[in-house]
Order: sequence, then C-alpha cells, then structure tokens
Amino acid sequence: MAEAASQDLLLAAAFVSDAQYNRNIPFKTSPEAVRLYYLYNHWIMRTATYFFIFLNLSLALFEEPAVYPLPFLVTSVVEVLCLLVFFGRLTHFARVTPRSVFWKDTKNICIMVAILLSLTDLAIYGVLRIYNVRSIRWSRIVRPIFLVNFAESRQIRRAFRSIRNTLPEITYVFLLFMFSLLMFSLMALKLFGERNLQTAEGLPYFRNYLEIVFDLYVLVTTANSPDVMMPAFDFSSWYALFFIAFVIVNTYIFMSLFLAVVYNNYKKHLKNEIRKLAYMKRRKMIEAFNLLKEEEGAQFVVREARWKQLVKLVAPDTSNSHLELLLRISDDEQKGFIDKKSFVQLADLLNIQVITLKIRSHPLGQWMPRVYQSAASRFLRSMVRHRGFVWTYDVIILINAIFIALDEETPYISYAEWVFLALYIIEILLKVYTYEPRAFFGKNQFWNWFDTLIIFAALTATILNTTLKSTTKYNSQQILDIVFILRVLRLIRIVDSIQRFRVIMNTLINIVPTMLTFGGLTLVVYCVFAIIGMELFHGKIQFFPANSNAPHALECGNPALKDSLFARGKYCKNNFNNFASSFIVLMELTVVNQWHDILFFANGFANVTVQPAKLYFIAFHIVMVIIIVNIFVSFILEAFFVEYSLEKSEVETAIEQKIQELGMGVQEDELQNEHLLDNMESTEHDLEGDSGAKPPSKGLVFKIASKRYRTVDALLQRMFEAEIPLEDEGPSFEEILSLAPTAPVPSHSTSESAA
Amino acid sequence: MAEAASQDLLLAAAFVSDAQYNRNIPFKTSPEAVRLYYLYNHWIMRTATYFFIFLNLSLALFEEPAVYPLPFLVTSVVEVLCLLVFFGRLTHFARVTPRSVFWKDTKNICIMVAILLSLTDLAIYGVLRIYNVRSIRWSRIVRPIFLVNFAESRQIRRAFRSIRNTLPEITYVFLLFMFSLLMFSLMALKLFGERNLQTAEGLPYFRNYLEIVFDLYVLVTTANSPDVMMPAFDFSSWYALFFIAFVIVNTYIFMSLFLAVVYNNYKKHLKNEIRKLAYMKRRKMIEAFNLLKEEEGAQFVVREARWKQLVKLVAPDTSNSHLELLLRISDDEQKGFIDKKSFVQLADLLNIQVITLKIRSHPLGQWMPRVYQSAASRFLRSMVRHRGFVWTYDVIILINAIFIALDEETPYISYAEWVFLALYIIEILLKVYTYEPRAFFGKNQFWNWFDTLIIFAALTATILNTTLKSTTKYNSQQILDIVFILRVLRLIRIVDSIQRFRVIMNTLINIVPTMLTFGGLTLVVYCVFAIIGMELFHGKIQFFPANSNAPHALECGNPALKDSLFARGKYCKNNFNNFASSFIVLMELTVVNQWHDILFFANGFANVTVQPAKLYFIAFHIVMVIIIVNIFVSFILEAFFVEYSLEKSEVETAIEQKIQELGMGVQEDELQNEHLLDNMESTEHDLEGDSGAKPPSKGLVFKIASKRYRTVDALLQRMFEAEIPLEDEGPSFEEILSLAPTAPVPSHSTSESAA
Repeated sequence: MAEAASQDLLLAAAFVSDAQYNRNIPFKTSPEAVRLYYLYNHWIMRTATYFFIFLNLSLALFEEPAVYPLPFLVTSVVEVLCLLVFFGRLTHFARVTPRSVFWKDTKNICIMVAILLSLTDLAIYGVLRIYNVRSIRWSRIVRPIFLVNFAESRQIRRAFRSIRNTLPEITYVFLLFMFSLLMFSLMALKLFGERNLQTAEGLPYFRNYLEIVFDLYVLVTTANSPDVMMPAFDFSSWYALFFIAFVIVNTYIFMSLFLAVVYNNYKKHLKNEIRKLAYMKRRKMIEAFNLLKEEEGAQFVVREARWKQLVKLVAPDTSNSHLELLLRISDDEQKGFIDKKSFVQLADLLNIQVITLKIRSHPLGQWMPRVYQSAASRFLRSMVRHRGFVWTYDVIILINAIFIALDEETPYISYAEWVFLALYIIEILLKVYTYEPRAFFGKNQFWNWFDTLIIFAALTATILNTTLKSTTKYNSQQILDIVFILRVLRLIRIVDSIQRFRVIMNTLINIVPTMLTFGGLTLVVYCVFAIIGMELFHGKIQFFPANSNAPHALECGNPALKDSLFARGKYCKNNFNNFASSFIVLMELTVVNQWHDILFFANGFANVTVQPAKLYFIAFHIVMVIIIVNIFVSFILEAFFVEYSLEKSEVETAIEQKIQELGMGVQEDELQNEHLLDNMESTEHDLEGDSGAKPPSKGLVFKIASKRYRTVDALLQRMFEAEIPLEDEGPSFEEILSLAPTAPVPSHSTSESAA
Repeated sequence: MAEAASQDLLLAAAFVSDAQYNRNIPFKTSPEAVRLYYLYNHWIMRTATYFFIFLNLSLALFEEPAVYPLPFLVTSVVEVLCLLVFFGRLTHFARVTPRSVFWKDTKNICIMVAILLSLTDLAIYGVLRIYNVRSIRWSRIVRPIFLVNFAESRQIRRAFRSIRNTLPEITYVFLLFMFSLLMFSLMALKLFGERNLQTAEGLPYFRNYLEIVFDLYVLVTTANSPDVMMPAFDFSSWYALFFIAFVIVNTYIFMSLFLAVVYNNYKKHLKNEIRKLAYMKRRKMIEAFNLLKEEEGAQFVVREARWKQLVKLVAPDTSNSHLELLLRISDDEQKGFIDKKSFVQLADLLNIQVITLKIRSHPLGQWMPRVYQSAASRFLRSMVRHRGFVWTYDVIILINAIFIALDEETPYISYAEWVFLALYIIEILLKVYTYEPRAFFGKNQFWNWFDTLIIFAALTATILNTTLKSTTKYNSQQILDIVFILRVLRLIRIVDSIQRFRVIMNTLINIVPTMLTFGGLTLVVYCVFAIIGMELFHGKIQFFPANSNAPHALECGNPALKDSLFARGKYCKNNFNNFASSFIVLMELTVVNQWHDILFFANGFANVTVQPAKLYFIAFHIVMVIIIVNIFVSFILEAFFVEYSLEKSEVETAIEQKIQELGMGVQEDELQNEHLLDNMESTEHDLEGDSGAKPPSKGLVFKIASKRYRTVDALLQRMFEAEIPLEDEGPSFEEILSLAPTAPVPSHSTSESAA
C-alpha cells in the first residue's frame, strides 16, 4: 500500500513536471516505465543527446572537404558512435512510451530511417573507398533530421509546423508574384530586347527572356537596383518609369504581402498551439490530481502532506519558505488540503520564478561591526548609494570610450587604460562593500554579473598580455582582440542607466531564448544547403592569399572567372570549399536581405558550373529570405506587441497578489535599480538578528523574478489561459493529439468532474 | 418662413454632406456663408486648387536647373499666378469659417507664411538677377507646404500626424541603434584598424572612426554586405563572426524593431483617428437633425418630404428607386417620418454605393426579336455563357503570351498578332451580343472595362503603326512601345479567372486609393530633398551619351571621379542636374530598400563636394526608408489583416439586410463572374415588359457595389462604429477638435437627448 502510494506520487510528479515544462510525451504508467521516464528526462541524458547531435552535425567540418581534415576512419567511427547513441536514446524512448504510440509517431520513424540511411551510406562509401572509387556521401543531408526529430526539439518542430501551415497561402501569393514577374519580364523583353543596349560590363542587355526573369527577380530584392536600370535609363529617361512601376509593385507591395501572409498565419498558428499546450497542461494536472485525491466532505482534495511530498519531488530545489508560500497560495484558507481548482494551478505556480531574498546584514558588519559602522564607513556607503555615484561612473565610461577610440600606441593612453581598469575594480569593490554581496550577485542581477565578469576578464587578459609582451616582446593578437572587445562591451552598461533604453533592452534580452529556436531552424536549412552546395561547387573557386604567385590567383584559380565581377570584387574566399566557408556564403546570401550579391555569386558560380545552378540560389532565397526571415520578423513584431500590450494590462497573478497580501512583496521597479538594496539596508537595523525564522518573517522578502526571464511563450500562454474558464478541462488527450495542427482546438468543456 | 426653411435645409445638407465625406471644416451657419461653403466644396474649385498646387510644384521642371528651360519671366509669372490662386482660396476659406477658428488654425498661417516667403524670395531673386547677381531660390522648399496644408489634403496631413506621433518612440529606438552602431564601430576600429588591410579598390580599410561608422551604417542596410567584410575575412575567417553578430543585432533585430514601433504606433493612431472621425460624423448628423426636426408625439422626427428634399440636395444623382430604397431602410415601419436614430445613419447609407440594375431585355432582342431568338442565336448565346468559353480564351491568352515572347521579325508571328487581335475583338462582340450591354459596361464591371479598353487601344495603336510604317517605312518607337505594353497587360485577365488570385488582386486594387496618400507623402519628401539636392550637387556630375568625345566623358565630366566605382558603374546619369533626374536618384535611394548603392552615390557625390554631403544621404535614408517605407509596410500589413478578418466577420449592414428583405438583392459572388448576367438572362422572359415600375418591382435589382471599391478607412470606420452604441453621441465638436492627436477620444455619452 505504501509502495503503491509512493508509486502514485512518482507518477503524479511526472505529470506535474510535464505540465510545468510543457512536455507532451505520452508515457506508460507502470512504475518501471515511470522510473525510466524520469531517467529519460534527466538533464544529463538530454544534454548528452544534444552533444551527440551537434557532434554529428559538426562532423562536416572534419570530413572531406574539410576545414580541419581528419582521417576517414576517425570521422566514420565518431559517426557510428553518434548513431549508436541516437539508437540507444530511441530505444529508451520506446520503452517509456506505449508501443502503439511509438510506431505511430513520424518522428521516431524518421530517426530510424535516418540512422539506417546513414549506416548504409557509410558502409557503401567505405567499401568504395577501399577500391578507390570516389562516391558522394549523400546521407550527410539527413543529419539535421536528428536535430529536428528528437523529442527535445519541440520548439524547432513547432517552427517547422508554422512554416508548413503558411505554405499554401504563401504559394498563392508567390504564384501571383511570379506571374507579375513574368509579365514584367515579357514587357522588358519587348521594350528593351531589340535596342542593342549594353550593360556597364559591355554584355548584351535584356536579350534573353530567362535572363531577364532572373535579373528582374534580383531587382525585386533591389540588389542590382541602379545597374539593371542604367542602360535603359541612359537610352531614354522615360524608361525609368518601367522600373519604378516594377519596384513599387514587386518590391514594395508583394514583399510586404509576403510578410503580411506569413505574419497572419504565424499569429493564427501560434494562438492555436498555445491553446493546445494550455489544454494539455490542464489535462496532465487533472491526471495528477486524480492519482493523489482523497475524499473530503463532498469533494475530492489533496491533503497538505501529500501535496508537499509532490512539490518536493517535482522541484527538489524549492526552499522551505518558498514551499510554505506556495502552500499558502494553493490552500488559501489554510484548511489543510488543496482542492482541484487550486491544484491545477500548481504547474503555473512552479513556473513563476520566486526569489527568496533573505535580508541579512552585511558580513563585514557582522565580522567587524565597529569599523563597518564607523562614521567614515557610513559616509562611504551613503556616497556609493547616491545617484551621483552612478552618474560619475557613466561619465568615466564615456571618457573611457574616447580613450579607446584614440591611438593605442601613445604610451599615456595605454597607461590610461590601467587607470580605467583600476577605477572599474574600485567601483565593484565599493559596491560589494556597500551592498550585501549575496544580494549583489543574486541570480537575476544581470548587470552586476555582466559588469563584474567583463571587468575581471579584461583585467586577466590585460595582465596576461603584458606578461607575454614583456617576455616575448610580442602582443598575442588573440588576447588583444578579446581585450578590445571586452573593453567596448563594458560601455553597454551606460544603456542600463536610462529607463527608456532599459525597457527596450529587456525586451530584447527577453526574446533571446526564442531566437535560439530560429538559430536551430537556420542551422537545419544551412546544413542542408551547405552540404548540397559543397557537392555542387566544391573546388570550383579557390582563395589565394594576397601575394600568392599561383596561376590564376587573381581569377580565384579558375580561368573562367577572368575579368568577372566576382573576381574583381575579390570574392574568392566566398566559396563552397568547406563547411565553414559554405556557412559564410549562405550567411551572406541571407543577410543581404536583398541578397545584393547573388548576381555576383550566382554569376560567379554559374560561370564555373552551369546556368541552372542559379536555381540553387533562388531556392535558397525563397526558403531563407521569403519564408524564414519573414517568420523571424513576424516573431519579433509579435514579441514586441505582446510586450507593449502587457506593459499596460499585466495580469497580477495569484502568487503576486499573495506575496503582496502577506506584506512580503517588493516592487519590481525597486529591484531594477539599486533601490531594493537601499531599502534592504535601511530596514536592516530593525531586523538584525531576526533572520532565519519561518515565513511570514520580516527578514524574508519574496519577489517575482524579473520580467526579462519570462519567455514570450509563457506570456502568451498566460494571456490565453485567462480566456479559458477554470472549470473547462478541455478535450481529452487523444482528442488534442489527433487534432490537425491547423484546426482550432474545440473548447467544449468535458462533463467529467471530480466531485 | 419658407426661405428660412430652405436655408435650414441647405445648412442641414451641408452637414450631411460633410458627414458623408468626412470633411471637418467648421463653417459659419449664416445663409451666405453656407452658400459660399457650397461653392468652396464644389468639385471644380477643388480640382482647380489641386491643379495649381501641382502646377506650382512642377515649376521646378522649368526653372533652372531645368528639364525644359523656360525664361525666368514665364516661370515667375506662373508662380505669382499660383500664389494668387492660393491666396484667393484662402480668402474664400476665411469667409466661410469663423474668424476665431481661422486664425487659430496652423494650416492657414502656414499657407500665408509660405505665400509671403515665396513672394519675397521671388522679388529678391528678380532684383538680383537684373544686377546679374546669382542667388539661391531658397523659397522653392516651401512649395510642398501648399500640398499639405490645404484643407483638401486631409489624408496626407493624417499621415504626417502619424509620423509625428511615432517620432518619440522611434527616437529612442534610433538612439539605441546608434549606440549599438557606435559600439560596433569602436570594436571594428580596434580589431581591424591597425592591420593595414586594404579594400578591393586598394583603399585603406577601417582606419578612420567616422568612415567605419558610415560603412557599418551602410552594412545595416546590407548594401555593401560582402565587400565591407571581405578584407577582414580574407585576413582571418574568425573575423566573419564580428560581421555576423553585427548583422544579426543591427539589420535583423533593430530594423524589425523599427517596423514594430512604427506599426504599433500606426495602429494605435489609426484607431484614434477613426474614432474621432466617427464621433465627428455623428455630431454633424445630429446638428442636421436638429435643424430639420419636427415634433411627432413624444419625440422629434424628420418628415418624409423634408427628408427626401435633403437627400436630393446632398446627392442629386440619386435615382428615384434608390431614394425609395433609402427611405424604406430609414423609415422601416413606413410611418411617414424618420426618427433620430435612423437619421444619423443616413451619411453611412449614402456612402454605400448601391447600384440599381434594371433587368432589361437585350436591345437586339427588342429591335429584331426574330433573329435574336432564333435557334442559332440561342445556341451562340448559350455557348458564350458556357464555362468553356472562358477557358478557351484563357488558353488563347496563354498561346498569345508565347507568341509575344517569340521573335517579332518573323512575318508569320507579326501576322499572328492580327489573328489574336481579331479573336479578342470577336470575344468582346460575342459577349456584348449575349449580355445586356448596359449591364456589361456597368460602373463596377472592372474587368470588362479593362479588357475592352486595352484591346481597342491596342487595335488603334497597331493600325496607326501599320499606317505609319507603310507610308514612312519606319516604326514609330513610342507607339510600338505602347502596343507592347498593352499586349502584355492583356495577359493580366487570366489572373481574374482563378478565385484565389482574384481575392488577393481585389485587396490590392482596394488599397490603391490609400496608397495615393503615400504617393503624396513621398512627393512632399522628394520635392524637399530634390530641391536641396539640386542646390548642393547641381552640375557636379554630367552625363554624356555613349559615344561622346567630350573631355572626361568617362569620368562623368568630373576629373575627381576618375577610376571611381561611380564612374565605372556608368552611373553618370544619376545626378542632381534637374528636377526629374533628382527624383530618379531619390527613387533609387529609396527603392534600394537597403539602399545598396548609397556607397557609390555618396562616395560619388561626396568625392566631388565634401564629405559631410554624406549626411544628406543618411538623412534621406532615415526619413524615407526608416520612417515612410515602414509606415507604408505597416499600412499594407494592416490593410491585409483587416481584409482577412472581414472576410469572415463582415457585418451585414442595414441596407444589405433591407435589400435582401425586399427580395431585390443579388449575391456579390454571383456578380463577380458572369453568373449574374446569366441569372438576369434566365429571368428575362418572365419579366419582359415589366420594367420601369416603382420598387419593389421585379424588374429592378439592387446590389451593393463590389468590395473592391470600399476604402480601408471606410472598413475600419465601420468596424469601430459597431463598438459605439447608437445612443452615444460622443463628445462635443469643441472637445473633439481640442483633443491632442495622441489622446484617446473620451467615450462618455453626453446626456443631451432629442426626446
């Protein structure tokens, strides 16, 4: 019986934990499976999986064409190792999840197929290699599948789903856009084709229909804007009107239309996904409740002791005071049990980072109270706390900025650098002297950490460099570079002093985690295109250092590029000769939002291979710029709109209310600047010796972790949850899972009730 | 008494008309003033004002530096004439509006000051010219003021207000962006400044701080993307990371942030403006009601006869049947009078374009019924009405497209063109034969008009060209160009055959009127920058035809540009030598969203003048690309979102319901394709001889004009009006007018009531 109860507790904890982290893995509920499931979700296992995924992806750096060549044997052994790990992880997953679910899930099938393909390809390639037959490692394209399809990469999969859902709508706009492009090209052919005009390079201008289409496609991105117009414009000024009309219709209107369609779908889809997540979460919490419920009068409840065990199991790091606080919120009337409605909120409560601030006196004040409380010390501390102290250091930073810009070689200036370093270190020491060190280096005192780390890194690097210089008479360029960057980064601090800038900065920092999802998405697309690109263009273009004597050094090692714009622009290092170079080229193609130089690239690459290679670049442009960049822009737009709307209508959560009610709250604003610390200091005298008591003790202050650590997802979820009535349990698991991603989640409330 | 009544009617009609067209001119209510006000709003007066505004603006084409030079005397006489017209218009306005309002209005002061400045400048310039002293016509910059500040240009002023309201927010983001730019530049200086690197042109790379800032600013727009990176990248691949970080932070995040801020403010501001307009409209309708009301039982009402007089006065073109329909809607229960609530809606009712379709038999059917009703004729007509007919012609258009793309010189192909022309003309004739011509060329049969006009224009031009060729043996190039464009435009028709494309096209056509506002905005900015640009850069760069022997022809007539990228790119025609050229250059600077060639331009122009000239280009970029283009994109986004949301939740207006109720409605869908015409034809036999009767007669069908003719403003207004309760009369005139543009309109309902 006790064992059964503890097994129920374990299972319930698994449900709650899943709800907290929005994991949606259907697992078997047998005790053994639950224990395996815990292991599956353990952070070491997850990190290891990611490690091997990235190791597998980074193999491309060491395989031919390699940045750092390694023997085939080494890379193939590593690859087999990675595949084994993936297979192990998948097997583990298979033992956790019900068999029927496992085999229905496309993700698992994908991984298995990918493993098989990789092994097959590796075997074939190895055998052929023994017989000295060169073949293509085509299976390298499937490697990103591992990144997308493991259960951990929910976010990336969601982004892909978002893209898939946008495709039909985008296709219509794209077809219309292509129609417009073809029409304008036809007009251009008729208007300019027989004029015998020449481009600036003396090539025929607008003769061939397909080339016109390509040129005008590039013009849509405005990359070749004046060049493509100049010959016609020189011929007659009126022809400029053609290009103006073209740009207004295609660049401004159609490109905005793409953004509108992507953004509209993104928003629609996001809301649906969030709604689904919210229902799933509630479902899981109800499952957990049903496992732990006991009868109490007319209703089922969870008793306090059981509830505490559960929370301890789900979040072992929770401090006793925090646990006590959560209990006070869940069991509002202190009845000794928690009802279903309060229980369901637990997952959200756990997600709110509550920071327990213990108001303590300064350690120095305890160790040598006489000195610390002396008049001089008090004066010093009040000085540091004064607003003028911050301003003084802002001025110092500005002067520092000017010194950085000045010439490094003058000895006085290099000495000045030491002075600045010393000043910064003094600042940190003074602050630590004045404020309680554990509060100063609190978990979310972002800027304090940032400052301190940067200054100590700069100090270390500068000392290291000076030592090196005095011994070897040479600067280490790498260390110097790092020092330069650190010095400049230090200047960011000044932004934090201005309220309006801080708001924008906080939003930016806030969306960094979600931006990583786009990083993942970009990585997947880049990997695929880089691997294809290397197969297509590898070795066609070579880079030679500036003073090389190699033949055709000026033509990037390829006589076909003689006198081309590509070679003249010294673009030789933009090639597909290895994985890293390919990434840089793709980055340039992306970045040049209007992909300014595809003309150079495409012509450069197309010259040395075949014209259809242009298709490769157009495909990349469509995938990356038209779709992914627009989704990224949509995401930033949405993130800022959510921030803007929340600024005004932030819903005070139960926990915030409770903290305020208990009189243990601290206003967020007070925490942002050093007011809190002042505040804590000023009450310190009353509270001395009163610390360590149980809540609600006066020595204890809770605060909700700063907004900047909340994700946009969490915000959206909370916004939407306000719309679902608390009684609505949503559709059942199966219903939610079997929903098409585009279909809105039905919001009927199931008749199931615990009472 | 009768005169007083007719004066009241006139005044009421003025109020209603203002409400209908959203005019917000406070006018005096004396009979004479009202009559003057009518004159002021007369379309001839308005058109004349616009004509003189554009004449005044276009003077820049004829003044030095001129596209088409005219003697100074001519341009100055025209300018004085324009200024006189403006003064006259302003005087007229002063007599219409109360004195206190007139002198408080900045618009009027602006116009007066602008007139004075222009005259002064003209006088000074004229006098100096007599003594042969060259001076600057600085007052030309104030000319766009006339375009903005006349009461007619509400939309442009609103756009300017929108910009002004966005400025504070944008400024913060811009400062943060500049800070980031300066920081990265500082890093770049430290990292690359002492490497002795060279650009592809052999110039020093990243030596001077200000030049780095400029280069990186250009990189933000991604215009010089790979070029600016290449030297550092060639030196060490790791430095690419610096540029990747830079582009992610500045290009992607900050530029999206600009869009987010602009869009957010645009939306907020738009909603406020629309709300204000809606309140103003209701106010005016109430004023009109109060003028005409008579007591009827417990409430005030407007009697039917009075109401009809009013409508006839406001909309003289309204047909009797339309008037009858409006009455049936307003006086729902046919009580012989209209109450306040219904009366207030009149302005909206008048704004809904109701088209009265008289179902008539085909004229040919009346003239020669025997032939028209014969079996052959019937067969022909049913064939034309068949879906296959449309498909056949779609195929013909496609084949035509291929023929257009083929070589013109082959005689067979030029003959084929005649065949196609004949086929198209046959199509139109067949359609006119089958459908009732007056319905076929109805007011909003956009595509029918489009087709017919294009084909007849093409026919005329082709015949003209052939005649010319047979007499003079030469093609007229201008006519040929027009024929080519018309031929290709004809292909657009195919898009209209596909439902999904039609929806997108309709939205695009729908937003054209509002886009004209942006045209006006752009015109103002362009004029100002073009005039400044001409003063700064005039004559510095010259264009010579390809085979010119002039000295420095290759260097654009300026030895300073020898071997510059500007000259090598053959950009000489991009200069500020006259108004038209300046516009093209500014267009290129705008269009190159990322303003790809500012480097060329700025370097080109900066080489020949001074480095600070770069500031001119940066200022233009900030105003045009960061602000105006973003507002334009916001507008397109919003327009499409409104369309998307209305597609689902279109509010059926009272008029639509009524038409349906009366059984005289036609579904919009039926009208889009030729179904309606089928429909009309099929009921024709039952209805013959039954036409011309009063409604609800069966021969009469009303329909709401197609969605594509509604403006986005009207849609938004209707959306918002649904939120205001009908009883809410909103704040008073004075309250609304004195509101700050940013302040939300208070929505308290005034206690004033007519009952």
